[in-house]
Amino acid sequence: MTKFEVTILGSSSATPAHHRYPTAQIVNYNQKYYMIDCGEGAQFQLSRYGFGYNKIDYIFISHLHGDHYLGLVGLISSMHLNGRSTELFIAGPPELLEIIEIQLKYSQTVLRYPLKFVPTQTNHPEIIFKNSEFEVETIILDHRIPCTGFLFRELPRGRRIIKEYIKQFNISPEYIPLIKGGADYTLPDGEVLPNAVLTIEPPKPRAYAYCSDTIMNMSILDQINGVDLLYHEATFLHDLQQRAADTFHTTARQAGEIATMAKAQKLIIGHFSARYRDLLPHLEECQTQFVNSFLAKEGFTFEVGDQ
Amino acid sequence: MTKFEVTILGSSSATPAHHRYPTAQIVNYNQKYYMIDCGEGAQFQLSRYGFGYNKIDYIFISHLHGDHYLGLVGLISSMHLNGRSTELFIAGPPELLEIIEIQLKYSQTVLRYPLKFVPTQTNHPEIIFKNSEFEVETIILDHRIPCTGFLFRELPRGRRIIKEYIKQFNISPEYIPLIKGGADYTLPDGEVLPNAVLTIEPPKPRAYAYCSDTIMNMSILDQINGVDLLYHEATFLHDLQQRAADTFHTTARQAGEIATMAKAQKLIIGHFSARYRDLLPHLEECQTQFVNSFLAKEGFTFEVGDQ
Repeated sequence: MTKFEVTILGSSSATPAHHRYPTAQIVNYNQKYYMIDCGEGAQFQLSRYGFGYNKIDYIFISHLHGDHYLGLVGLISSMHLNGRSTELFIAGPPELLEIIEIQLKYSQTVLRYPLKFVPTQTNHPEIIFKNSEFEVETIILDHRIPCTGFLFRELPRGRRIIKEYIKQFNISPEYIPLIKGGADYTLPDGEVLPNAVLTIEPPKPRAYAYCSDTIMNMSILDQINGVDLLYHEATFLHDLQQRAADTFHTTARQAGEIATMAKAQKLIIGHFSARYRDLLPHLEECQTQFVNSFLAKEGFTFEVGDQ
Repeated sequence: MTKFEVTILGSSSATPAHHRYPTAQIVNYNQKYYMIDCGEGAQFQLSRYGFGYNKIDYIFISHLHGDHYLGLVGLISSMHLNGRSTELFIAGPPELLEIIEIQLKYSQTVLRYPLKFVPTQTNHPEIIFKNSEFEVETIILDHRIPCTGFLFRELPRGRRIIKEYIKQFNISPEYIPLIKGGADYTLPDGEVLPNAVLTIEPPKPRAYAYCSDTIMNMSILDQINGVDLLYHEATFLHDLQQRAADTFHTTARQAGEIATMAKAQKLIIGHFSARYRDLLPHLEECQTQFVNSFLAKEGFTFEVGDQ
């Protein structure tokens, strides 16, 4: 099965504390790295956990609170100084490009590599990246400023041909794509082998939903329904439910409720307020609603689906 | 003697490596903290070494290469979130204000404290800060983009009255400022105590010069002559002298030469290129020119003058 996993580089909310870093994650899909958010110090965390700067070709920024993007210009600059020549894709709020460009301008830096910027908007979800294996769709979150999550979703695959039959029935290579596409196969003696015999169901496409920062938001449930892995912010414990609402954040209990309603398989909670040193209460509170819950922690890797 | 010392928060040049952070320093003068440069992660380093965010009221930024200021917006934001209400003074290139303001604007942050910005220029040195104890003057450096160093210089003090004589000769308090100002004192019997008997020389004003980033630059020598402590960048070893010149940086050997020519008392070298893991060769090369040399290292504190 193709590798599909998420490594946490930062689990902190706005003010870094207790050795927790601001938000950043790496999605490793088939040994290619996709970065989600890039808080201050993300480049240090990449080094610490063994991710080479220049293996990252795609960066997705959720919103323009500093704890989600202040590491970006430093990373762009380090890629430049480390001799990068290949294109870097960045998706994020339109104003992010202005923030990047003004800093490159005043440092008189002309990047040695192309930067492709894709602006996101918060009117409706849109697919902002697609390759032959998966696509990334925005999730419209409800925060103090425009903010999107990101849904990494594998594309459906064709049925898989049973390799042993290729040899046994001497199926010539030009027929294989046809069979994968659903065709039956007729043997030289006229006997027809039905497609359902020759092939098996492809694995169910897996999905990872990243939701930070947001007030508890039911409107995302349809879109994230049944995801294999859900990351959801849980800035506060539920006794600060009112504060969470006032600041457009979520409590650990609410994150568990969202995971249950979305029929997610597994939940990671993160974006913890600096007021909490010990995070076990977050996990316990979340598990009252959704058992298969985990705490985001710097350097920890979570698999998407069963591998 | 009033405390006057410098703590290194970051010793790295442009790309952080080998657990070295981008440039930032704290000058502790009489238990007040003055920050010089604020590279990415400076707020983490402040916490690590026990400097409270809100004990910093003055920040001096040398130039707009990211490794010298990318930690600033995160620090400004953390001060805001930690309830700061007192003014924050920032001096730096004029464009820095635009960089700060655009990021506050797009994060919809209205600071809870006043921010006082003092633009620096690179035409000639100027005093950009002064209180009753010391002043800060810019040093015009020669780098790829406009860059200033900073000279922290104690103000000359009046002669110090010998306390025992106040009691012995029953000198009334209103005369003490006059004596400190140079007056003699006439006893009731008409005998005159000369000022030179009653007072002693004040301690020599101390000075700290911060010089990063720059090509080897003789034009600063007059200004930094005789400083108690000199920080000078030493990005490369001298075998890369040409590369240092091309990139407007200095070698360890050249930093030692500058310290000798400036008749400095003590030298710290820093801003080390990521290509060097081991820094002992920097120290050895520098000491061939100036013996009293030290390596900048995260968390290390250096006294300014004899204390």
